[in-house]
Amino acid sequence: MNSLSLNGLSLRQALALIAEGHCAPVDVINACYDQIEARQADVGAWHFLLSREQYLQQYYEKEAFYKASLLQGLPIGIKDIIDTDCMPTEMGSTIHSGRQPTDNASCVNLLLKAGAIVPGKTVTTEFAYFKPGKTRNPKDLNRTPGGSSSGSAAAVADFMIPAAVGSQTAASVIRPAAYCGVVGYVGTRGEYSLRGVQPLAQSLDSLGLFSRRVEDIGLLRSILLQQPDTDLVKQDRPYRILVCKGSSVGESDPEMDLALEQFSVCLAQQGAELIEMHSCDLIRRLVEHHHKIMAWEATRNLCYEADRSEQVSEALQQLFELGRGMARETYLDSLQVVAKIGHWLWSNPDHKGVDAILAPAAPGVAPQGHCSTGQPHMSRPWQVLGLPVVTLPGMQDDNGLPLGLQFIGRAREDDQLLGLAHWAETVLS
Amino acid sequence: MNSLSLNGLSLRQALALIAEGHCAPVDVINACYDQIEARQADVGAWHFLLSREQYLQQYYEKEAFYKASLLQGLPIGIKDIIDTDCMPTEMGSTIHSGRQPTDNASCVNLLLKAGAIVPGKTVTTEFAYFKPGKTRNPKDLNRTPGGSSSGSAAAVADFMIPAAVGSQTAASVIRPAAYCGVVGYVGTRGEYSLRGVQPLAQSLDSLGLFSRRVEDIGLLRSILLQQPDTDLVKQDRPYRILVCKGSSVGESDPEMDLALEQFSVCLAQQGAELIEMHSCDLIRRLVEHHHKIMAWEATRNLCYEADRSEQVSEALQQLFELGRGMARETYLDSLQVVAKIGHWLWSNPDHKGVDAILAPAAPGVAPQGHCSTGQPHMSRPWQVLGLPVVTLPGMQDDNGLPLGLQFIGRAREDDQLLGLAHWAETVLS
Repeated sequence: MNSLSLNGLSLRQALALIAEGHCAPVDVINACYDQIEARQADVGAWHFLLSREQYLQQYYEKEAFYKASLLQGLPIGIKDIIDTDCMPTEMGSTIHSGRQPTDNASCVNLLLKAGAIVPGKTVTTEFAYFKPGKTRNPKDLNRTPGGSSSGSAAAVADFMIPAAVGSQTAASVIRPAAYCGVVGYVGTRGEYSLRGVQPLAQSLDSLGLFSRRVEDIGLLRSILLQQPDTDLVKQDRPYRILVCKGSSVGESDPEMDLALEQFSVCLAQQGAELIEMHSCDLIRRLVEHHHKIMAWEATRNLCYEADRSEQVSEALQQLFELGRGMARETYLDSLQVVAKIGHWLWSNPDHKGVDAILAPAAPGVAPQGHCSTGQPHMSRPWQVLGLPVVTLPGMQDDNGLPLGLQFIGRAREDDQLLGLAHWAETVLS
Repeated sequence: MNSLSLNGLSLRQALALIAEGHCAPVDVINACYDQIEARQADVGAWHFLLSREQYLQQYYEKEAFYKASLLQGLPIGIKDIIDTDCMPTEMGSTIHSGRQPTDNASCVNLLLKAGAIVPGKTVTTEFAYFKPGKTRNPKDLNRTPGGSSSGSAAAVADFMIPAAVGSQTAASVIRPAAYCGVVGYVGTRGEYSLRGVQPLAQSLDSLGLFSRRVEDIGLLRSILLQQPDTDLVKQDRPYRILVCKGSSVGESDPEMDLALEQFSVCLAQQGAELIEMHSCDLIRRLVEHHHKIMAWEATRNLCYEADRSEQVSEALQQLFELGRGMARETYLDSLQVVAKIGHWLWSNPDHKGVDAILAPAAPGVAPQGHCSTGQPHMSRPWQVLGLPVVTLPGMQDDNGLPLGLQFIGRAREDDQLLGLAHWAETVLS
């Protein structure tokens, strides 16, 4: 088995081969490093990176531990907004150049304990907001990888690592996953420890994961929750899926509308019951309320950075200005409207028995250029509601560029959502 | 004006005297340090403390800034669970001895920006859970100050500083404030930035404040929210107050029951309408659900510490054992029950038009001894609901020991709650 195919395996596939004695963990690690070394200059997924030698040294120093561990010493990338105690965490900003946290984030500790090794920190946009880092889309280097978890998505999409951790406040996991063509998952808000994950907006921040197969998300989730690793299960009765068209949320490209339609047809052919969402104006209204809540909270969370405007991007300065000038009533009104729409969504008789919502994960394929990470409006409504989300790759435009579609679940029903996504993945492939 | 009376002033009183030219900030600072130096050996409020010289050096280095600032360089204590970039943050545990954070928590930065100086870190119990620190109750050194924000409460109660910051996951602000006889305030969950406040349980953690007058809470709140400082306002119509008897939540001492009754009579005499809460069994059920949610979440947040059991107290180890062994369904069930009871509380026709709930802030006066910080059950129901709370001093037992009573408000109606508490404070005095 050559190196290229080993780094192309999913996490579970690699672990199965290791368990069966077909390869050693170091073979997978070396294959990943072959790819990293070949592609980092072009893709720029890593902000900080261990050399192959440093990585292997870590592995061999505790080889017995890794051999007995769940993750076998395989690499998991960590977004550079998440604290690590032996690598800097600079949050995509020169304000924190060389910042070396004293502690690992809890999610990092949980993964290390399960036998992961962190090869490096993946590029984030500035404070997980809009200003892009150096990462390019591995599917087309002239395009944005999306953000803010740009490096995590690109590293997984480019077969450098099997999985990575990110975070989402607006569209920071789902959009880059969609643009790079990988699986992206955002947990229900509050589901995972955010200790050591630098916050942007407390009412919006969620932990996220990237992989190339849905089943790997299930494995990482079990580690983060310290729960037994169980199979993702398709429910017995047919899935009832509420389809929210892109145009009802905001600007949506024709190829995305087509992809949504085609995917809906496939799901229906496989026995799912699809119903169209009406009253989408309520969902559309969530876009602006999300932005207001983010502005209010980010301005207080990032008060230190807000005072260093010469080192802050124009986009972030504008967010701070909005947050500073906002009347508290506006913020409270947004919170209230969101709560009402959240209640409407699941209590509406038309939505009775719905297992998940299906919607575009982004307005279309990754835009050309690197000045922006693309528009976040397709994620804002679900993120402000705090719901779990999975985006699946598999659909493409005529040029073979990924078009991501997302399933949105009910709060705290992450397992059910992943079961659905796991089944839908087979429909797509 | 002698030093003793200057350190006895509330924050607003001191600022008013300074503004009117009756004293200088340094006079207040020196009076506070006189008290700190006289009493720290007995009270043990401080885990880390600047010397008077170090404090004054900080003041004089930026005297012009402080003279133009809102808080005039006056001291605000910070609980040692909250990160500070120029003082260690050890979280009450030897696991983190000497831990020096790279950044200030956002709440610290906001206070510094408004002209506060941090004289030191106040004692916290181990990771803001149960194991007491060295602090003793300034009202009776043989008694616990309560916890986890033990040092913050004691330092304000002992006139060492006018105000302090704490945090609450179970009863960590309200109970020590009640036991020490000061004003304690817990914000609606999500109201303030918790960046840099080390988490215990994400569904429960809230920021809290201590002062000797309710009006000081209003001032500090305006700073933390970057909002104009406005007066706390009594509403025009009579307050409608729902009384929740201590015995309906759990064990409650007879002197506390009497204090609640006496205070209720006073409030009624001043025009408030008091109604008794029935169906208190629902409130009582929240006590256990709070504990389960805390166990589940703390175990994941403190996974690093959980692996260092030889440095972890027995009480915390028991919490981790509960959290590790808990079925996820149990955790989810608790979250659901809490949501249902939260909805019942404000939609119950009997509770229509209620402005706040009045309840004991603790089962009685501070217990004797220093092996425990007392029982937290009087706070658990309101904390798990995420509601804003103010406890007021003023009631006492026959020996002059404080008996705290708390008002619980509606979520995000912190301003209205503080207006009520400000009015009730005058009723008590």
